[in-house]
Amino acid sequence: MIELNYRNVSAEKVGRENGLELDAVFGEYREKISEIVTRIYAEKDRDGGWKRWLNLGYDKALADSLNQYAHSVKGQFSDMVVLGIGGSSLGGYALLRALLHPYWNQLSDEKRNGLPRFYFVENVDTDQIAPLFEMLDPQRTLFVVISKSGTTAETMSAFMIAKEWLEKNLDAAEVKKHIVAITDAKKGVLRPVADREGYQTFEVPDDVGGRFSVFCAVGLLPAALCGISVAEMQQGIQDLDKALQNPDLSKNPAAQGALIQYLLYERGKPISVFMPYSYRLASVSDWYVQLWAESLGKKHDLNGDVIHVGPTPVRAVGVTDQHSQVQLFNEGPHDKVFTFVAVGKPERDLTIPANQFSEVEDLNYLNGKPMSQLMNAEFESTRASLTSNQRPNLTITLPQVDAYHFAQLLYLLEVQTAIAGELFGIDPFDQPGVELAKKYTYALMGRKGYEELIPVARGEKSEARV
Amino acid sequence: MIELNYRNVSAEKVGRENGLELDAVFGEYREKISEIVTRIYAEKDRDGGWKRWLNLGYDKALADSLNQYAHSVKGQFSDMVVLGIGGSSLGGYALLRALLHPYWNQLSDEKRNGLPRFYFVENVDTDQIAPLFEMLDPQRTLFVVISKSGTTAETMSAFMIAKEWLEKNLDAAEVKKHIVAITDAKKGVLRPVADREGYQTFEVPDDVGGRFSVFCAVGLLPAALCGISVAEMQQGIQDLDKALQNPDLSKNPAAQGALIQYLLYERGKPISVFMPYSYRLASVSDWYVQLWAESLGKKHDLNGDVIHVGPTPVRAVGVTDQHSQVQLFNEGPHDKVFTFVAVGKPERDLTIPANQFSEVEDLNYLNGKPMSQLMNAEFESTRASLTSNQRPNLTITLPQVDAYHFAQLLYLLEVQTAIAGELFGIDPFDQPGVELAKKYTYALMGRKGYEELIPVARGEKSEARV
Repeated sequence: MIELNYRNVSAEKVGRENGLELDAVFGEYREKISEIVTRIYAEKDRDGGWKRWLNLGYDKALADSLNQYAHSVKGQFSDMVVLGIGGSSLGGYALLRALLHPYWNQLSDEKRNGLPRFYFVENVDTDQIAPLFEMLDPQRTLFVVISKSGTTAETMSAFMIAKEWLEKNLDAAEVKKHIVAITDAKKGVLRPVADREGYQTFEVPDDVGGRFSVFCAVGLLPAALCGISVAEMQQGIQDLDKALQNPDLSKNPAAQGALIQYLLYERGKPISVFMPYSYRLASVSDWYVQLWAESLGKKHDLNGDVIHVGPTPVRAVGVTDQHSQVQLFNEGPHDKVFTFVAVGKPERDLTIPANQFSEVEDLNYLNGKPMSQLMNAEFESTRASLTSNQRPNLTITLPQVDAYHFAQLLYLLEVQTAIAGELFGIDPFDQPGVELAKKYTYALMGRKGYEELIPVARGEKSEARV
Repeated sequence: MIELNYRNVSAEKVGRENGLELDAVFGEYREKISEIVTRIYAEKDRDGGWKRWLNLGYDKALADSLNQYAHSVKGQFSDMVVLGIGGSSLGGYALLRALLHPYWNQLSDEKRNGLPRFYFVENVDTDQIAPLFEMLDPQRTLFVVISKSGTTAETMSAFMIAKEWLEKNLDAAEVKKHIVAITDAKKGVLRPVADREGYQTFEVPDDVGGRFSVFCAVGLLPAALCGISVAEMQQGIQDLDKALQNPDLSKNPAAQGALIQYLLYERGKPISVFMPYSYRLASVSDWYVQLWAESLGKKHDLNGDVIHVGPTPVRAVGVTDQHSQVQLFNEGPHDKVFTFVAVGKPERDLTIPANQFSEVEDLNYLNGKPMSQLMNAEFESTRASLTSNQRPNLTITLPQVDAYHFAQLLYLLEVQTAIAGELFGIDPFDQPGVELAKKYTYALMGRKGYEELIPVARGEKSEARV
């Protein structure tokens, strides 16, 4: 089971100025946390409560339908292109990066066991998209288009290009077999298109927001299509969920993480660094950055008062960033809290040969050691040096990187975010701060009714608000 | 030529509380900036001044030797593995990601024009390294090992594994042809090994630190081996350098950027977001994060006083992060300054088809438009919304992403960092904050003389300092 270790946020470890008197604050917040956890889980089936993602790990029908479709198309497609952005891409990408071969797309069809290569189009940069389409064989390419509303400009413009490309290259009756749509069950503009054209579809369930959608078809269909076990992920979530539902702060790692992050933010640490010591988990950071930033970065509290609140998540990767950001982390301002993700053991290991540079005394300490020992030593050393420098830090440990524990990691962070939202007193499930730019984009793209905004969108006029 | 636009940091645009009275502060700092720029460039040849990187753009002999070697091995290698970490990998990787096909490693030998695929080993995670080695053909693989001192644990342990792998798979006389070492000309432990074994070598010049080394062989050899023009990069640097050497603040974009970043940091904005609107430039963010964080994040000022200073760089990518971090950027605390990198025009463009969903009114504004227009509209809109929300921001514009302008972008940021170091009153060329963790690593790896540190490195004892 995944574990959280928070001893290095204690005043005992990092000093009173930078740490927490854990017994005292846990006592102080015990009741409030109990209320919050109870309330969050009580809302998991409520309409409009935006907490239905809490049910996804138990949805066996979802797993069955994904597996059935994945099984039905196995071997048909050499390449899968996911068209999605933000919550519609970050989770699926993190999942494939963590659980497939690190150079999956370069493996032969045989080594991929007939499963598809994958690409994520999560930008509208033609310097990515045009060369990508030239590489693909339309006969052997599957597009997974993901948009709950069907109005996401980036995703839908890429989808229009993809659909036209398929139509130019395939018989009319074949096109629909190369498209899967993941969208709202009833609402939105992609649903009627998908139904009319006869695409395979999966739902983004009601009251599941983009950044909490990794465990519905949005994240799990790409996984299932690449042969990753949905059942193992669901089992991981179910086994962990017992602890996360527990209203007792002393036994609930999501509540502990949320409370510690909240208190350290309030005490002058606005930056939250997320640093997995794992090549495979590097892209989990990008998923987490969206989850934490978009959920907690808010202008208004629940009473409508202006508070401009929100920790800034920062991504780092161990050991790589020891030679990049760690200088700042150790010596810069005391404005950060750190979350390490450690892995018990790698799937593979290598031995550093003993006889290569035996004359070089400065390297002898490496000789004959497993490389995993170096990885672990560097993690422990960086953590110890940050602790010595009074930088509070948490460690989440996965026994290994597999579907079961990967799902636990993401689910832990989702529940932690929901609890943190309650502590910050904001709505973690909305994102009003991106609407203004969308209107400006409509104006600059010539959409009717937005003409007045053109000068402001161009920066020629500077009215603060429209 | 690359350009810097800073109008959106002005009080006029983002309000007095969050912006700068530019005329006033430029007047106030004119003389100081003039001194700083003059002093920095005066030190470009001084021993121990750590500013020799200012000369790299003029080193025609370097360009010739790189091209000569690249030419001599052209067609011999299908795969290039760069073994390096931090400053020895981030620049080269950013360069190849920006200037090669976005899916280069998947192209056929013919489409790559016989140039090698590339991999960067910048971690000690065996879940990356073991699968990588299994994919490679030893007959057709070149290793580029980069370490100035030859004692970098991560790089040298990977190199020992690589060398043993070559020796197991090739005739003894062949091994050396598959290794290039980039290291100190005389000092360190890799130099004597390379000379004894007969490797092709290139130098990390004296007084060029890792994070300022992209324009010596460290960044340029991988580029030359993949067919990128070193001459165009050097020409870009030379053409820009005229402006950067100018002590007149009103004409020097590096000085303007440094001063604005410094002043906004001092006025309560500790976070510096770097957000290229370009898929190809996404990895420049990682290079910049090291440059900014490791150079400016310092405990001591030049007088030895404890100041714990340093802005925290944050990476973002447009348009992707509009669906991730931009909510926080628009609505969260007023603790950030933003640097956008815009691209005048993509190399390729695509038209969004006009006839796909003509019945869907919500999408009609996209019909028939070039996708590059959407990219630009989204950039301008996000910038305008941040400005409306009183978030100061700078824009660096590249007319296009090519070797010439890419080099200008990195060189501008290097000079900006050097000037910022002077303004912050710290040494931007050292990194004392990573030494403690290195000692702990030695202890945990069993290196002689470090036994006493084992309990502290394991976190069992908590002495603040050793």
